[in-house]
Amino acid sequence: MSHRRIVLASRPAAEATLANFRLETVETPPLADGQVRVRHHWLSLDPYMRMRMNDGKSYAPPVAIGAVMVGGTAGEVVESRHPGYAVGDRVVGQGGWQEFSVVDAGPNAPLRKVDASRIPLSAYLGAVGMPGVTAWVGLHLIVEPKAGETIVVDAASGAVGGVVGQLVKTRGARVVGLAGGPDKCAYVKDELGFDACIDYRGKDFEALAAELDAAAPNGVDGLFENVGGLILDVVLSRMNAFGRIALCGMIASYDGRSMPITNPRLLLTQRLKLQGFIVSEHMHLWPAALAELAEGVANGRIKYRETIAAGLEAAPEAFLGLLRGRNFGKQLVKLT
Amino acid sequence: MSHRRIVLASRPAAEATLANFRLETVETPPLADGQVRVRHHWLSLDPYMRMRMNDGKSYAPPVAIGAVMVGGTAGEVVESRHPGYAVGDRVVGQGGWQEFSVVDAGPNAPLRKVDASRIPLSAYLGAVGMPGVTAWVGLHLIVEPKAGETIVVDAASGAVGGVVGQLVKTRGARVVGLAGGPDKCAYVKDELGFDACIDYRGKDFEALAAELDAAAPNGVDGLFENVGGLILDVVLSRMNAFGRIALCGMIASYDGRSMPITNPRLLLTQRLKLQGFIVSEHMHLWPAALAELAEGVANGRIKYRETIAAGLEAAPEAFLGLLRGRNFGKQLVKLT
Repeated sequence: MSHRRIVLASRPAAEATLANFRLETVETPPLADGQVRVRHHWLSLDPYMRMRMNDGKSYAPPVAIGAVMVGGTAGEVVESRHPGYAVGDRVVGQGGWQEFSVVDAGPNAPLRKVDASRIPLSAYLGAVGMPGVTAWVGLHLIVEPKAGETIVVDAASGAVGGVVGQLVKTRGARVVGLAGGPDKCAYVKDELGFDACIDYRGKDFEALAAELDAAAPNGVDGLFENVGGLILDVVLSRMNAFGRIALCGMIASYDGRSMPITNPRLLLTQRLKLQGFIVSEHMHLWPAALAELAEGVANGRIKYRETIAAGLEAAPEAFLGLLRGRNFGKQLVKLT
Repeated sequence: MSHRRIVLASRPAAEATLANFRLETVETPPLADGQVRVRHHWLSLDPYMRMRMNDGKSYAPPVAIGAVMVGGTAGEVVESRHPGYAVGDRVVGQGGWQEFSVVDAGPNAPLRKVDASRIPLSAYLGAVGMPGVTAWVGLHLIVEPKAGETIVVDAASGAVGGVVGQLVKTRGARVVGLAGGPDKCAYVKDELGFDACIDYRGKDFEALAAELDAAAPNGVDGLFENVGGLILDVVLSRMNAFGRIALCGMIASYDGRSMPITNPRLLLTQRLKLQGFIVSEHMHLWPAALAELAEGVANGRIKYRETIAAGLEAAPEAFLGLLRGRNFGKQLVKLT
């Protein structure tokens, strides 16, 4: 038996390109005791993968040249030599950019069984998965929205940002999103229930600041930052005293562009707290986060949107599109 | 009776100059009930005063044109119409750049009686005053040094930085200072007991980074930042995961120069926390801080150095020197 996978062929010089990926067909290895074979139905595409393509100091080691690209997957067990798993179990894991994976299914395995009866399987890669928990953890650890405050989140129509805004609303705070284009902004405001959304495309500092002043007339108390660069500079200039900034992503700089914070003195004069975080380092918060997110998705209070690419071979193009904001909501690849 | 004072004559266009100050002689007002008259022995000069000369958004209102420059003072009560104060009491307050002040001596007055028998009166403006408490609060709230860690502080021979390093040592951590010139570095290392001190003068990013690598071979876990600009960029590039940065001052940018953080992505990839703070907003910590600092100074374990200008008329020149790093340790003006 064989399956297809996508490996990192080369490291990007600046922007990632299709040439950095290679599609391969390999023999699927036999199972050893304690292992399960998972057929992936869904592959998750996420901005963090761009950083893993680079060499150099970061929170996780780079993907090796020739190795399968890392990635979250949702699927079903098709063969099991572990007593805890039966054929047909729906599971979420870190199977990577490939059609099947073999997992050592011990207690610390990166594999969990999920209930796909109340919640669509794909949602476990989005609002009820790593992106949703990222939103929850950044809010609870760092932003700590309080009733009556104003919180800003960029990439607001994305898998993380959309959940951030909906959670902020349940905490009684006002939420302002930033997104690229009128369609995304309409969705953020009308479907997700944000108080306002700013289309950042083609706008300079002054134009963005004027729109932010209109959308957040009392200033900004918290920022959930997914993008970096100009947007961070603009929001920083409108932060109130004792504001909190959760640094979740800086997608604007992932291809190596320099994205300075132009006026860090504001961090001092406004007594701000800025903190970077990685969701996988706060595992103790996952159960509470997943409980709230699953309940919200199951009863329809937490909404999300998906962009679905068809077939493993479509993953590289879809991933490059994600980095350029061409997706709308959670970017997935359907593998079955 | 009359006394001399220095008022803000004009706001600096960029660098502050002597022309921004004006020496005046004014009538000393009579006392009302509940007031005391304080003769200032010492005026404290501190970098924060430069920000108060500017108009614009900051944590404290600007000094008005024509108003007395703000400043901490230590002196003695020379006349009292408040039952809690007697002539001869040694007091520390916010008397400003003048020889005498009249204070409403209620329970919330910015005036406290001090014991000048065990501790020199001037130390209440330095190691046992606002600068020392600033060091203590930034370490306890934000940097949180742990045994075995490496902490960096710049302006290390200054009133704040010198105390930072000595407190870090008592917490069992390694401390690396940055200071301007070989004399200051020798003092920081030999007198204050820092593990290493880097002379930052005339060095670019690469040179500073190489010296920091030698002085902190295990990387940097905490930074107490008084300067900003290039030094912040260099130390940021050497921060370990989960490092903490207390943003206490950015003296490099006080005259309006732009001092960007060049590579803020490190804040994300290393999961750093950066937080600005103002010591006067953490009054609940002052008693514990002052107790430790007073004990340390009284028994000689906490050392400090003073640069003393003679006479109120010398204050502007001494202040401009402080902004350019010409002082050595705590900058004071002796008024008696």
